[in-house]
Amino acid sequence: MSGNKNNFQLRVYYEDTDVGGIVYHANYLKFFERARTEWLRDKGITQSFFLEQNMGFVVTRMEIDYVASAKLDDLLIVTSLISEYKRASLVFSQKMTDQNQQLICSAIVRVAFVDLSKSRPCPIPKNILGALERVS
Amino acid sequence: MSGNKNNFQLRVYYEDTDVGGIVYHANYLKFFERARTEWLRDKGITQSFFLEQNMGFVVTRMEIDYVASAKLDDLLIVTSLISEYKRASLVFSQKMTDQNQQLICSAIVRVAFVDLSKSRPCPIPKNILGALERVS
Amino acid sequence: MSGNKNNFQLRVYYEDTDVGGIVYHANYLKFFERARTEWLRDKGITQSFFLEQNMGFVVTRMEIDYVASAKLDDLLIVTSLISEYKRASLVFSQKMTDQNQQLICSAIVRVAFVDLSKSRPCPIPKNILGALERVS
Amino acid sequence: MSGNKNNFQLRVYYEDTDVGGIVYHANYLKFFERARTEWLRDKGITQSFFLEQNMGFVVTRMEIDYVASAKLDDLLIVTSLISEYKRASLVFSQKMTDQNQQLICSAIVRVAFVDLSKSRPCPIPKNILGALERVS
Repeated sequence: MSGNKNNFQLRVYYEDTDVGGIVYHANYLKFFERARTEWLRDKGITQSFFLEQNMGFVVTRMEIDYVASAKLDDLLIVTSLISEYKRASLVFSQKMTDQNQQLICSAIVRVAFVDLSKSRPCPIPKNILGALERVS
Repeated sequence: MSGNKNNFQLRVYYEDTDVGGIVYHANYLKFFERARTEWLRDKGITQSFFLEQNMGFVVTRMEIDYVASAKLDDLLIVTSLISEYKRASLVFSQKMTDQNQQLICSAIVRVAFVDLSKSRPCPIPKNILGALERVS
Repeated sequence: MSGNKNNFQLRVYYEDTDVGGIVYHANYLKFFERARTEWLRDKGITQSFFLEQNMGFVVTRMEIDYVASAKLDDLLIVTSLISEYKRASLVFSQKMTDQNQQLICSAIVRVAFVDLSKSRPCPIPKNILGALERVS
Repeated sequence: MSGNKNNFQLRVYYEDTDVGGIVYHANYLKFFERARTEWLRDKGITQSFFLEQNMGFVVTRMEIDYVASAKLDDLLIVTSLISEYKRASLVFSQKMTDQNQQLICSAIVRVAFVDLSKSRPCPIPKNILGALERVS
């Protein structure tokens, strides 16, 4: 797993699907977030640690292209990379494919680091930014 | 709307369904909670008010019988009554029917009043209990 | 309610929020879809009718800007208009505000009309397109 | 992993929590179902296989006791066993604990095997019942 690229695998369950027979479109956003969360965890960064200090990453913009539909029991892989590092925000580029290497959807996600008590962006701590940029 | 009985109506959307073609079983719990919430609101009790004081109603036990399945676009009615009043908890008896008076499911839900900072039950404020018991 | 503009109101419940104290970012997509669904229903178009024929509107692209955060008990209004009509797809422009006229988020949503059995776009039926364009 | 007992591990994400700071009560039902699904998969039984034949397991009754609250980033373990085998239904007894062996909740879940086209129970195929009863 390189420093600024990450793979995350997940399974599609009944809870994720809808009556159209496919994964409900809003649920892909959960999958993308799980992938970002596990990547941060790999880097030693847990969101609950930030929460105790009333800080957290908040999604401020998202572009998502739905290319094909995932289905029940699919084993999906989310590939993520950080395409932009700023003082108080990051941009993730993420792709999701299924077990047949079929591209399901792709997303560009801007997350801001936010002081939740004031609902205001604040600088990402230096050691966090460092950990994210480091190629391991 | 009598003091201890309440009706609440809701629509089934794509988000509520699953690939089996029916409402996903966990989602009925959301519907039952919306009904309890709106009933409290009718009584002048908003959950966000409690939250600001770090208190809230928490579900501690639930029995649910799934009788028939709700489907996309169904218009459901939840009928709720409080079947037990205690110092620090309430029991709701709730039933859900569709637009054809078909019983969909029924639930018995115990909710405790909890100090969220200590994760510990605490007495329901007297004026709240009074409002809940009053037949209007 | 004009022919190509629509308002839809909804309440924020516990189910919609997350531990950050605000509405979970994926859940706004559900709210936007409820608004599109009710608009179609106003026009006499129900999604379950299409489903029986194995057809449906499927989201193919979404851009969403998160401006401010909605909170528990907020009463939100979604304003929707169709900004592009094509043979097999529509583009909705949607905005969500809270009870204080604070803009919460805005979205541009492309939906394709899809033959679900083949997972392939197909032309939107003429009478549907007509109903959508008509200013009532 | 014995024939009729199974452990399944999962992580709590933002999507699972609510503004009370804990996992939203309906979401535990998803966790219990993931555990049942993975157990069936271990036995060579995939739900999508049944779905193609318009059959599936449907929850018909659930009793759930919420003992303590799971939180963001918790690593939960669901222990499941089948406590009753019938011709057309099974009863699962399930428990969920966190990384500190704290019991979070327990559930008794009856699932019926259903012909989804007729919404009617039907006998569980013999080879499936056999696989479930077998101690491996």
